[in-house]
Amino acid sequence: MPPVKKGIIERLNAGEVVIGDGGFVFALEKRGYVKAGPWTPEATVTHPEAVRQLHREFLRAGSNVMQAFTFYASDDKLENRGQTLKITGAQINEAACDLAREVASEGDALVAGGVSQTPSYLSCKSETDVKAIFKKQLDVFMKKNVDFLIAEYFEHVEEAEWAVQVLKTSGKPVAASLAIGPEGDMHGVSPGECAVRLVKAGAQVVGVNCHFDPMTCVEAVKMMKAGVEKAGLKAHYMVQPLAFHTPDCNCQGFIDLPEFPFALEPRILTRWDMHKYAREAYKVGIRFIGGCCGFEPYHIRAVAEELATEKGKMPPGSDKHGMWGTALEMHTKPWVRARSRREYWEHLKPASGRPHCASLSTPEGWGVTKGHTDLLQHKEATTTQEMQHVLQMQKKGKSTA
Amino acid sequence: MPPVKKGIIERLNAGEVVIGDGGFVFALEKRGYVKAGPWTPEATVTHPEAVRQLHREFLRAGSNVMQAFTFYASDDKLENRGQTLKITGAQINEAACDLAREVASEGDALVAGGVSQTPSYLSCKSETDVKAIFKKQLDVFMKKNVDFLIAEYFEHVEEAEWAVQVLKTSGKPVAASLAIGPEGDMHGVSPGECAVRLVKAGAQVVGVNCHFDPMTCVEAVKMMKAGVEKAGLKAHYMVQPLAFHTPDCNCQGFIDLPEFPFALEPRILTRWDMHKYAREAYKVGIRFIGGCCGFEPYHIRAVAEELATEKGKMPPGSDKHGMWGTALEMHTKPWVRARSRREYWEHLKPASGRPHCASLSTPEGWGVTKGHTDLLQHKEATTTQEMQHVLQMQKKGKSTA
Amino acid sequence: MPPVKKGIIERLNAGEVVIGDGGFVFALEKRGYVKAGPWTPEATVTHPEAVRQLHREFLRAGSNVMQAFTFYASDDKLENRGQTLKITGAQINEAACDLAREVASEGDALVAGGVSQTPSYLSCKSETDVKAIFKKQLDVFMKKNVDFLIAEYFEHVEEAEWAVQVLKTSGKPVAASLAIGPEGDMHGVSPGECAVRLVKAGAQVVGVNCHFDPMTCVEAVKMMKAGVEKAGLKAHYMVQPLAFHTPDCNCQGFIDLPEFPFALEPRILTRWDMHKYAREAYKVGIRFIGGCCGFEPYHIRAVAEELATEKGKMPPGSDKHGMWGTALEMHTKPWVRARSRREYWEHLKPASGRPHCASLSTPEGWGVTKGHTDLLQHKEATTTQEMQHVLQMQKKGKSTA
Amino acid sequence: MPPVKKGIIERLNAGEVVIGDGGFVFALEKRGYVKAGPWTPEATVTHPEAVRQLHREFLRAGSNVMQAFTFYASDDKLENRGQTLKITGAQINEAACDLAREVASEGDALVAGGVSQTPSYLSCKSETDVKAIFKKQLDVFMKKNVDFLIAEYFEHVEEAEWAVQVLKTSGKPVAASLAIGPEGDMHGVSPGECAVRLVKAGAQVVGVNCHFDPMTCVEAVKMMKAGVEKAGLKAHYMVQPLAFHTPDCNCQGFIDLPEFPFALEPRILTRWDMHKYAREAYKVGIRFIGGCCGFEPYHIRAVAEELATEKGKMPPGSDKHGMWGTALEMHTKPWVRARSRREYWEHLKPASGRPHCASLSTPEGWGVTKGHTDLLQHKEATTTQEMQHVLQMQKKGKSTA
Repeated sequence: MPPVKKGIIERLNAGEVVIGDGGFVFALEKRGYVKAGPWTPEATVTHPEAVRQLHREFLRAGSNVMQAFTFYASDDKLENRGQTLKITGAQINEAACDLAREVASEGDALVAGGVSQTPSYLSCKSETDVKAIFKKQLDVFMKKNVDFLIAEYFEHVEEAEWAVQVLKTSGKPVAASLAIGPEGDMHGVSPGECAVRLVKAGAQVVGVNCHFDPMTCVEAVKMMKAGVEKAGLKAHYMVQPLAFHTPDCNCQGFIDLPEFPFALEPRILTRWDMHKYAREAYKVGIRFIGGCCGFEPYHIRAVAEELATEKGKMPPGSDKHGMWGTALEMHTKPWVRARSRREYWEHLKPASGRPHCASLSTPEGWGVTKGHTDLLQHKEATTTQEMQHVLQMQKKGKSTA
Repeated sequence: MPPVKKGIIERLNAGEVVIGDGGFVFALEKRGYVKAGPWTPEATVTHPEAVRQLHREFLRAGSNVMQAFTFYASDDKLENRGQTLKITGAQINEAACDLAREVASEGDALVAGGVSQTPSYLSCKSETDVKAIFKKQLDVFMKKNVDFLIAEYFEHVEEAEWAVQVLKTSGKPVAASLAIGPEGDMHGVSPGECAVRLVKAGAQVVGVNCHFDPMTCVEAVKMMKAGVEKAGLKAHYMVQPLAFHTPDCNCQGFIDLPEFPFALEPRILTRWDMHKYAREAYKVGIRFIGGCCGFEPYHIRAVAEELATEKGKMPPGSDKHGMWGTALEMHTKPWVRARSRREYWEHLKPASGRPHCASLSTPEGWGVTKGHTDLLQHKEATTTQEMQHVLQMQKKGKSTA
Repeated sequence: MPPVKKGIIERLNAGEVVIGDGGFVFALEKRGYVKAGPWTPEATVTHPEAVRQLHREFLRAGSNVMQAFTFYASDDKLENRGQTLKITGAQINEAACDLAREVASEGDALVAGGVSQTPSYLSCKSETDVKAIFKKQLDVFMKKNVDFLIAEYFEHVEEAEWAVQVLKTSGKPVAASLAIGPEGDMHGVSPGECAVRLVKAGAQVVGVNCHFDPMTCVEAVKMMKAGVEKAGLKAHYMVQPLAFHTPDCNCQGFIDLPEFPFALEPRILTRWDMHKYAREAYKVGIRFIGGCCGFEPYHIRAVAEELATEKGKMPPGSDKHGMWGTALEMHTKPWVRARSRREYWEHLKPASGRPHCASLSTPEGWGVTKGHTDLLQHKEATTTQEMQHVLQMQKKGKSTA
Repeated sequence: MPPVKKGIIERLNAGEVVIGDGGFVFALEKRGYVKAGPWTPEATVTHPEAVRQLHREFLRAGSNVMQAFTFYASDDKLENRGQTLKITGAQINEAACDLAREVASEGDALVAGGVSQTPSYLSCKSETDVKAIFKKQLDVFMKKNVDFLIAEYFEHVEEAEWAVQVLKTSGKPVAASLAIGPEGDMHGVSPGECAVRLVKAGAQVVGVNCHFDPMTCVEAVKMMKAGVEKAGLKAHYMVQPLAFHTPDCNCQGFIDLPEFPFALEPRILTRWDMHKYAREAYKVGIRFIGGCCGFEPYHIRAVAEELATEKGKMPPGSDKHGMWGTALEMHTKPWVRARSRREYWEHLKPASGRPHCASLSTPEGWGVTKGHTDLLQHKEATTTQEMQHVLQMQKKGKSTA
């Protein structure tokens, strides 16, 4: 029988750094197992080997959290966006928990079950209806006995509060993470106020994930921390940002960038960008530090390497990596060997190789959020009429840009 | 018993498009299984599940060739660059062939065994010595009965000729691919002349791989084809380029770019760039079309989707992808649904999100190639003195840039 | 005897648009008559034909204000920065007024005399001392009977207040313009508060000039206007921005950009940028609209053309320009003729032709302002010791950037 | 009576550097005296003070050649492009010669009369007709006794030969300069062959002007020199490039760039770029070194400062400039003083301040040259039908870019 692992709150209370994992949706889309558009995780059932392998890579990279791949695995989401396999949310969630547990057992990692924003909320369903969806997912997580729970990727703090309230009934530790930046949630609630509300709802760890680049997310969490402290409350902090540079985003984040989701490549962070991110997050007082869309295993490894001293150990995967590029000493070409040092990589400003492209884009800003008819979800495929409507809006947006 | 698959030459003779796979070294480095610097493939022995998974992803993406992961798996390379596990080249090559065969059997793919340039050649060893290295690798490929052979990643046509001559003794079909661009090999031999020499040495398929971006590689193969035709010879053509934009390269390719190998992210091609590449390669008359460093499964899938009409079928992995982004019709946000069409993605010029970076770099140009003392390989780690020498050269290069 | 011209306040009270001129210091530096570093206007005495010609060009371009070229023409400035000709401030100012009057008489323009920030203030001289400097300049302006007075290019509102108080004693209309952006003056006083203080000191027109690009300056004046209105006061508004794009500036403006003052070329605004600026300034309620460093006559003409309807006439110089490029209809090449229309130029995003340069810089931020010893002015040339000090600070700044 | 000045050929024979002037058309367009589109020089008659002032500025900057402002001053050009003042070519040319002579007398400069390509040639008029146009201009130059003659801005070497043959009849020294780059003239004649033909036609100085940036022009002249030397001939060499970076041009030069002529600002060279240009031109063996469109007086001064040692003196205008920025030692702000040194400016890569713009453009390539109906010139304004035709061609070009 393996020794019992320290729980998430015990670790954070002890001041330990907890390394999160990266975003499965984007990584598995590139590997061929997730469909961009619906973004749903049927792969836990149809291609478990692919999901398991990605977990293993993050474990090797240093992750202490195996987040079950349950993103958007609520029945209301699965129904209304083209899922034709008739796999239920419960089936996906169960398989996801099993895969996460299997790999977590191979190292120093905990299993987290997660819920995220629902089409029902955007379509203005009642609190009772929305909470019922979270409860259904929670039942699986309890059955599978995950180590803790995460309510993540919420654009409206109100829905996140509902999720936390549901998850809290389980008695498990609850973390809550919003998809917001320094401008606050989609209804204009500031990061500080969001955090206070989440803590009051019962979250022990609060933070942000997705939608913005690492430095922007760290800034938002810093504002959350200031809000929580000002309110005389206590919490731990988490951050799981994009691995894309997004200096040109508005409050809706990378969704509004013209490059989302199929032309974000030039924005991908290097491992050296990740060192800066990890250091900054640590300085600000965040201790649960991971990633979201765009993070590949080597990004997480870079976070773990930057914080190796604080953690007291290097991640397993560093047996295939020289800290700050030192393994380049073994490269054939002498001029590449000359790059085997921190000063080289730390100051390099990488070129895009795209002289016909600009460095910033103009985000679309439709100003459409919860309650707007364009967001009402339905099971049927988008009609031609609906498409003409959105194309007209897009064209209109361009001509005024 | 499965039906016998058509061989590589039969396919090419029939005018079929053969989709290659992507580069394992870079993909597995990001996943944590290959060490940048030595770049050697011990993972076939130590982490077979990771190698197998990557093969599977390329198969799903539409690859017709499972290239055994044997890059740099020659004993002279394994010895002199920090390989401490005492795994022999033969062990690696055997494991690599088994993994490739296992996955190839799951679909419409052939197994290829490959050899690449050797430290021995760069260190001016004799033709006999160098050929002995290739022979040792070939012995494994014959024992494992691969479907065909590839001599790839050669910077000097002379060494490639030697490789082809050795491989040719097997009776298996031989393809030969140089790591060169339109300027020719590192001794200044033009692509046309290189191709003629390789065909005369016995290669039935000739082309280029690695070192340059897709359009540049296609241009080089076009020059090869012109050379072969002018000489009154016949051959098939292959191309397996980088998935990085490299308009600023000199004749040594991306190795000389300051971003190599750890800051190439902003140069990564989008799937839409791949559509253009696949179409252009096809137009030029190339029929073996694949990828090298930087290619992820979704890049190969884009190649396969672009050529789906010519191939008569979509790749298996397209069940998780809408051609030209059509699956975005199922996205929650209407402005993302507005992007579910070819015209949108085809003309988008993606921003880098890096306004403090330039779009082109100045490549280093040390002008060091076979025969130069700085390239003499040795088993020992780089000494402090050697490092000081290369750092001085690097500094000198910068001040004159 | 010519008809008496309407004064500046009468024009503004009548709701007329008053077009300013461009910055003489930068324009004459490029023509060879001003020395960058000291930036002093001895050319009014030594090369009057060059100064007169530039006035004429701005008059042709549509300027309604001939600002006497008296920038930095205070004795304390002339003394301490390498002026070796022993020309006094009074001599320069008198010559400047005569030149401005001569050209103003040739068209619909008024003559303005101006004072700007003094080394004495930066060196912490007393209010009495600083005011004495302004008084000395004012005496010349009164003797030459200028039409109105401008206190401009102040980084600290306190010194501008002193200037306004002195100028106000003359009975002439007084305009006051700070070299600040939306962040406020160098002591952190907000634009709104600055404006209120200037109005209370007696300025009838308030605004900003220099240091930032047009849109940033318009934004700052908008904040001034909001402040003045909130305080229940009344004023007219002016803006005379740079003709350089400065999105990467901090509160000190373009002085802190690494490109200042000798590599700003890639940032120069096109005439089409000027159309947007003029329209935006007008919309915000600004009626005295001109330019500062970087403005060439064609920039002012573009402002005048954009506002031709509001002014009721085109500028004289438009006889050599087709509105929105229509004169290109007479170009030899048909593809250039195709550019003779507004939609073409309005949406063009001009390339830099510099793929090895970034699009944004990191400004230096020494945080040195009034009261800091590094700003104490002295007559002697910079000593070697002082230079070593600043070079060390510069190096330090770079390594932390 | 002033001492007789050394002629152009005596200077070049003696190995002296002769500094040219900059392009009047672009400089005076920005000042309000030339209309872009027709580009004709009526200003010599209507605004002589503006033309005289620009000559003076170039003289101060170090120019040894006052080129009479006679660009496009042929009657066939004046007639067919909107010149409504009924000023004849002879009137313009006479006034231009007088202005050039007046200013040349004030310093060490010679007067040159010039002819350039004609609409008649593009419209396929006969050699006799075209030569008659040159002869008419030459008659004025002889009457005004210019010091030497320049045939410049020819896109087809054949027309330039005709011009040289006419000018040669005068007995004056003849220089010939084509508007071509390394790809050769618009009919594909290589720079080397062009130069040989011009020398054989009678030109004593050959080179290129306009259409490309300095380094590209120097490269083209280098090819000319190689051609002339290979043919066993002798000549002197001249170069008068653009002051715009044009790495993205095709063979037609900057005319084809989307930014021509009203959005070239981001491409303007800095004075430091000019130092590199002057040094490179000198190294290649060019001794007549000047500028064309985009050159302002400070650009020529930078050329003269870079070659001050070779010329044995600084230009007069350097009394208002510190070599390599040294006058910044007298700047108020210490961090600007820190920029008063060569290493700072020599290595600075200036940002564009335009993150929404790319660094390179795609030139239009209509492939229309002499003989194409779209180039047939007529006196009437462009018709609506003609405009629709060119707009269609432009749109078509864009969609395939």
